Amino acid sequence: MNQKDHLAALKRPLPASLAAALSLIFADRYSTTQAMREHHGRDESSYDPMLPDAVIFAHSTEEVAAAVKLCAAHGVPVIAWGSGTSLEGHVLALHGGVTIDLSQMNAMVAVHAQDLTATVQAGVTRKQLNEDIRDTGLFFPIDPGANASLGGMAATRASGTNAVRYGTMRENVLALTVVTADGRIIKTGTRAKKSSAGYDLTRLFVGSEGTLGIITEVTVKLYPLPEAISAAVCSFPGTGEAVNAVIQTIQMGVPVARVEFLDENGVKAINAYDKLALPEKPLLLFEFHGTPASVAEQAQVVQEIAAEHGASGFEWASRPEERSRLWAARHNAYFALLQLRPGSRAISTDCCVPISRLAECILETRADCERAGLVYAIIGHVGDGNFHVQMLVDPDNPFDIARAEKVNADMVTRAIGMDGTCTGEHGVGMHKMAFLVEEHGEGAIDTMRALKHALDPKNILNPGKIVRW
Amino acid sequence: MNQKDHLAALKRPLPASLAAALSLIFADRYSTTQAMREHHGRDESSYDPMLPDAVIFAHSTEEVAAAVKLCAAHGVPVIAWGSGTSLEGHVLALHGGVTIDLSQMNAMVAVHAQDLTATVQAGVTRKQLNEDIRDTGLFFPIDPGANASLGGMAATRASGTNAVRYGTMRENVLALTVVTADGRIIKTGTRAKKSSAGYDLTRLFVGSEGTLGIITEVTVKLYPLPEAISAAVCSFPGTGEAVNAVIQTIQMGVPVARVEFLDENGVKAINAYDKLALPEKPLLLFEFHGTPASVAEQAQVVQEIAAEHGASGFEWASRPEERSRLWAARHNAYFALLQLRPGSRAISTDCCVPISRLAECILETRADCERAGLVYAIIGHVGDGNFHVQMLVDPDNPFDIARAEKVNADMVTRAIGMDGTCTGEHGVGMHKMAFLVEEHGEGAIDTMRALKHALDPKNILNPGKIVRW
Repeated sequence: MNQKDHLAALKRPLPASLAAALSLIFADRYSTTQAMREHHGRDESSYDPMLPDAVIFAHSTEEVAAAVKLCAAHGVPVIAWGSGTSLEGHVLALHGGVTIDLSQMNAMVAVHAQDLTATVQAGVTRKQLNEDIRDTGLFFPIDPGANASLGGMAATRASGTNAVRYGTMRENVLALTVVTADGRIIKTGTRAKKSSAGYDLTRLFVGSEGTLGIITEVTVKLYPLPEAISAAVCSFPGTGEAVNAVIQTIQMGVPVARVEFLDENGVKAINAYDKLALPEKPLLLFEFHGTPASVAEQAQVVQEIAAEHGASGFEWASRPEERSRLWAARHNAYFALLQLRPGSRAISTDCCVPISRLAECILETRADCERAGLVYAIIGHVGDGNFHVQMLVDPDNPFDIARAEKVNADMVTRAIGMDGTCTGEHGVGMHKMAFLVEEHGEGAIDTMRALKHALDPKNILNPGKIVRW
Repeated sequence: MNQKDHLAALKRPLPASLAAALSLIFADRYSTTQAMREHHGRDESSYDPMLPDAVIFAHSTEEVAAAVKLCAAHGVPVIAWGSGTSLEGHVLALHGGVTIDLSQMNAMVAVHAQDLTATVQAGVTRKQLNEDIRDTGLFFPIDPGANASLGGMAATRASGTNAVRYGTMRENVLALTVVTADGRIIKTGTRAKKSSAGYDLTRLFVGSEGTLGIITEVTVKLYPLPEAISAAVCSFPGTGEAVNAVIQTIQMGVPVARVEFLDENGVKAINAYDKLALPEKPLLLFEFHGTPASVAEQAQVVQEIAAEHGASGFEWASRPEERSRLWAARHNAYFALLQLRPGSRAISTDCCVPISRLAECILETRADCERAGLVYAIIGHVGDGNFHVQMLVDPDNPFDIARAEKVNADMVTRAIGMDGTCTGEHGVGMHKMAFLVEEHGEGAIDTMRALKHALDPKNILNPGKIVRW
């Protein structure tokens, strides 16, 4: 079948026999109502919704396998759905089909506190996981902001503020249970902390955005809750100084747990929203984890480094309420920003570059935003070289969206030119497919496509995402 | 072509036109001498040599690509060769063909000290890398014992003593240059510290043992040399106590850089070899990295934990020569052990289990060794739940080898039953292919085989390793 016929075939309405079979298995957990389909036809991106033909709520890996087997037999697309917080159109039903909502698969399968591992069903959210393990003295550090599901976080290779110390989902998923395109159930790994046993299926499915298999269980690493936590903030005369302070901090081997950057616009928005009077200059927010002596030492070293780079207003705090006060600027940034332009929608994009190029990349992107006349802020997980541009657009104004897209495209090209990546943590979805080719080149994309063809020969798993068929 | 015809076809002598073409390109770097073929037909495993038909020494990625293209056109096997230190028959030319020796591809491509990354050709060894970057104040921590090449370490997903703190090659390779089965050159990633851009090709090739592509360049993470290093040793009444001390150390969040275990036999061998008088009881060796205050604090905490678990003889040292004295037992263990049975050869196997099961796994394996009447020692990277059994066998005595293999097989089955893996760091090669099936199950193995078929449709890349065709 050629590409056009293939895509046309994917768009057929749901075959009646498939609808009947799914309805029989899932009963009142099978829905074709407009409201349910609309809810599952969108994510946090600015795309218009694209609706699946039906939505089912799975309760077990076996149910997912049964549904995928049926869809495979009919050549009908299957889209896995966690919490709908993806940002690049990952879960939109581009070719219709059946969306499998995994949010009710929210059981804790096993917590092995001695081994620092937990196994959860894919629908468990990161907050639920941390609530559940609170008594063990352990925590799961990956924090992408949204209260995403673990399955979705694995599927998009999520990370966030803690990644500089604890890594991303790439480093923190030990094993997955996956339903393959033909409806088989496989386990991709064990609870061993390391392994050289064959191809790394775990890492192959992590970040595959539901296009190679459907993740139904996730085994993750846990970490001891730090004995002490301290936080610090300080302001810098410019972005270059702030980034250089971070580079030196990391080169000194300070094991900083979080280091976040807010540009002038982010600080201005926060000042207005929280009625603060922070200097309207680039701001760094730090968090340190360790023993009381160790976090005091870390804060001391960082204060000295920051001072060398012209920082002012260094404050640090170790008591929880004081830490929260210092970090309020970061926690409220998104909502504060939205207030700058009521009625607007935020387009959030990200890229990641080697840290030596970060200041340059941010400053050139900032200049683009200014030239385009955008309302925006830049917020960065700066220890990893990863930053976000939040651009406020009028969703009904095509010109507004177009200029934001232009800034995004130029930022990605710039990042790739600096030996960086088109997305540090948001993923590809539909929105960054062209940039993926730009980043990897045809040979590597052909390799990715060969993997997709091998593991999903009928192209039923979240078709139209990551690589063109 | 069926399996038998396919394997027979692989065993044909090198076609004359291929030999002529390779000889033309590689000139005096093309060899078919018996000595050269024998040198490349073995590794550090106990397998009899299996010789390639020819050996070439590549100097560039482009040369590797040219050689692979020629071999692909003739359907002739290609085996990548780094330093020959693999342990499970990885580089043996099971079906003949051409071995590409990458050891002369030993150029440092780029060191980016600010970004904490280095890019090297595949033949650069870990010692060469660390020599070369010494002036930067950075180091590359992965230390599998042998002075392996970075390409080989990536291909086997190597790790070693530092993995408990710094991770394995899985966590420390950022990007690879790979020659694919059709002789194309691809880059699998960028120097960005994290990325959500598409399928994780880097992690797919890491650990693929030359069966999916040939790694020609490796970009790795570097780390700041610790300001202070201290070492400690102590003895325990039993294996359980030693392992429990380690579990508690890790649960307390002590960021130990190394923690190695030697069983009684290992200590006895060392006492004889180094004329020491260590208590002939399980021994733990620690290394701590950090600031002077931090390593002192770590040593203090670990001493208290060890004491709670009945440790005696706790010694710690921070000056280099004192640290070396304490760690001599670990560094000399392999040679000390060989002295226990002159003329013997060591069979070295490994497995990795969740740490809560480690003591049990070691003790049961130890009992098997005793019952089998083997001369052996058990040495573990105990912070990761990974341990080695070194068994001394008479290479000319089939009974001796058979009983060692039985102990190995039982150990692997035990580890898998504990939700562990058949190999923590040595890899699969030829020796652990059956165990790989036992560990992953048919569904996951079929998925691995689908990847192999997709990326190497002619089965020319190191055929006969990892998964059956």
